[in-house]
Amino acid sequence: MKTAAAFADFRSYPLVCALDTVKPLADQVLITWADGRVSPFHHQWLRDNCPCPQCVYSVTREQVLEIVDVPEDLTPDTTWLDDEGCLCVGWQDGHQSRFDPGWLRAHAYDEPSRAERLASKPQRRLWQHDLPLPVFDYQAVMEDADALLQWLLAVRDIGLTQVRGVPTEPGSLQRLAQRISFIRESNFGVLFNVQSKADADSNAYTAFNLPLHSDLPTRELQPGLQFLHCLVNDAQGGESIFVDGFAVAEALRQEAPDDFEALCRIPVEFRNKDRHSDYRCLAPIIALDALGHVAEIRMANFLRGPFDTSAEQMPGLYRAYRRLIALTREPRLRLVRRLEPGQLWCFDNRRTLHARNAFDPATGARHFQGCYVDRDELLSRIRVLQR
Amino acid sequence: MKTAAAFADFRSYPLVCALDTVKPLADQVLITWADGRVSPFHHQWLRDNCPCPQCVYSVTREQVLEIVDVPEDLTPDTTWLDDEGCLCVGWQDGHQSRFDPGWLRAHAYDEPSRAERLASKPQRRLWQHDLPLPVFDYQAVMEDADALLQWLLAVRDIGLTQVRGVPTEPGSLQRLAQRISFIRESNFGVLFNVQSKADADSNAYTAFNLPLHSDLPTRELQPGLQFLHCLVNDAQGGESIFVDGFAVAEALRQEAPDDFEALCRIPVEFRNKDRHSDYRCLAPIIALDALGHVAEIRMANFLRGPFDTSAEQMPGLYRAYRRLIALTREPRLRLVRRLEPGQLWCFDNRRTLHARNAFDPATGARHFQGCYVDRDELLSRIRVLQR
Repeated sequence: MKTAAAFADFRSYPLVCALDTVKPLADQVLITWADGRVSPFHHQWLRDNCPCPQCVYSVTREQVLEIVDVPEDLTPDTTWLDDEGCLCVGWQDGHQSRFDPGWLRAHAYDEPSRAERLASKPQRRLWQHDLPLPVFDYQAVMEDADALLQWLLAVRDIGLTQVRGVPTEPGSLQRLAQRISFIRESNFGVLFNVQSKADADSNAYTAFNLPLHSDLPTRELQPGLQFLHCLVNDAQGGESIFVDGFAVAEALRQEAPDDFEALCRIPVEFRNKDRHSDYRCLAPIIALDALGHVAEIRMANFLRGPFDTSAEQMPGLYRAYRRLIALTREPRLRLVRRLEPGQLWCFDNRRTLHARNAFDPATGARHFQGCYVDRDELLSRIRVLQR
Repeated sequence: MKTAAAFADFRSYPLVCALDTVKPLADQVLITWADGRVSPFHHQWLRDNCPCPQCVYSVTREQVLEIVDVPEDLTPDTTWLDDEGCLCVGWQDGHQSRFDPGWLRAHAYDEPSRAERLASKPQRRLWQHDLPLPVFDYQAVMEDADALLQWLLAVRDIGLTQVRGVPTEPGSLQRLAQRISFIRESNFGVLFNVQSKADADSNAYTAFNLPLHSDLPTRELQPGLQFLHCLVNDAQGGESIFVDGFAVAEALRQEAPDDFEALCRIPVEFRNKDRHSDYRCLAPIIALDALGHVAEIRMANFLRGPFDTSAEQMPGLYRAYRRLIALTREPRLRLVRRLEPGQLWCFDNRRTLHARNAFDPATGARHFQGCYVDRDELLSRIRVLQR
């Protein structure tokens, strides 16, 4: 019997540590590794994860077995370690399973193994006004897989990047975005044109200043990445302003825990509406992940509906909201830059809030193009580049 | 002074009840309505929602005022009801606000008003095997706004519909989906072809049976609506099976509350991976909304990664998962139909689980096309049709 043929994955799992002994218990197998770690594997889990070609279709690497079709009390007749260091299980019903030790270690669910996986997750880096701006070169990211990966890792972990040397023909942005994946369309189009328009269907398409916001907080899933590409910028004003929303939220949590808690708990409605569409989303301004880390900021004052909470909570909600906005205005947190033609911003729209100073259309033309790509596509691209 | 010029909305707000009296308090105004209801409106809330053209840009109907630019303790000098029954507020700083009573009643946040709004939200209708299938006619929904609305309401509230009389040319589905909105693209394309392929990158593209599942549980936001359009169906087998996932989850909550709770709490990883992409999403199988109602089912056995929870929780997770799958297999819950050419399914992918019996490609051709549209686009379209 050679190395397990079908893993339900396209990743490889190097041998980190050899299996040492295997001990059968009533409802699980207890593995001891060469480094002394002990990992329990329940019978159900092992049978469920059998990688053989009967249980996993080798072309798609997707599971065919459904665990419910196996008795709940199925137990092994025999368990052993083979010559290649794999865990082998001979089941009561005659089926055999064989597990590669690299794969098994990567999926072990003893506490040290789970803690190790958690610790190896990417760490975000919070920033303030003095962030050394991560700048990348268009040609490099278009042609070189490693330059692309470095850019995408910065987008993921810092949430704000600039790309320079981008062609200034309208539509050029599309080619760059497609280096990651397809573009997420919205009612504003596949690419949207940020220009002052008489018949604007968003304040973004005026010459007004725009306060710090995320785009499309009016959707259940706010777009993950936002691109803003400068084609022409001859108008006075219109500087871009960025704030790390996670840094702002963490500052609020420190300074005013009650306000932080209110913004995590009380849902607020956001609305994009025009003659042809009417988008509404009700969600808290700050979302936390399962570990209590800030996972998302949802905020656009100009898209906010009237607060709708109990009369008892209303004053507290205003206090919290005012404090959050005030924090985003602190100069120590704000990075301000003017974007020049051929440059573009690519940032995490669910983390990095963006704003624009008012500009004067009488002083010259200003034309940006923008688009969105979701976090799922970013992370998939990173995983494939890292294989 | 005529009726308030700019509302920050495109909806109309009919006069449900007149304003009777207005009483100023320290931090709020207390309104009594003609029907006796009493509504508090805090000063901050009133100032924040001032609909005048200085505070709201009349072209986009988006707010320009930021409440943080107004003192936190701003109070009215005077409040009165004008000849047209509007609430008028003269602020200390000289600004004046005027609120239409129809709009004010629709946004009042006293408890009876909030309970009324909650009760008027659309109610889902749970179903079992004997659902009278909601069937709609292609020509009618393409040409008639009311037929379109009726179809979309059934999609929203029942979560399973069939459309008949659809042209069988490849690509026809696109026109129908675009009656709602743009299509949500995925790594499988804008339209995907469901056919048995030698180089399948998903078990969906084989002739295997597919157990009950949602599509793309591997994305943070599972697609809201799924379309499956039958072009050719000459092969034996391949019947479509549907189960109301909300009905299944509610049955589980009744029969086995601990299992229900485990599936709401313990995250499970789902994976779509091939040579070009690697999507992973970690989330519980059952998601609840803020009121504790089941809001979403995330499930596809063939896309599931190994369970990764503590050894203490592992047996309970398997017990709960097995019980859920067993429930979806109960004939009383399953609706089974064979789709014929020119028919299509449109269903709520985050609620209605779908399955396919195995088919025999040797007995004839079978070609379906599918696509996705998100819930946001569905609900926006319904709101515009209902204006």
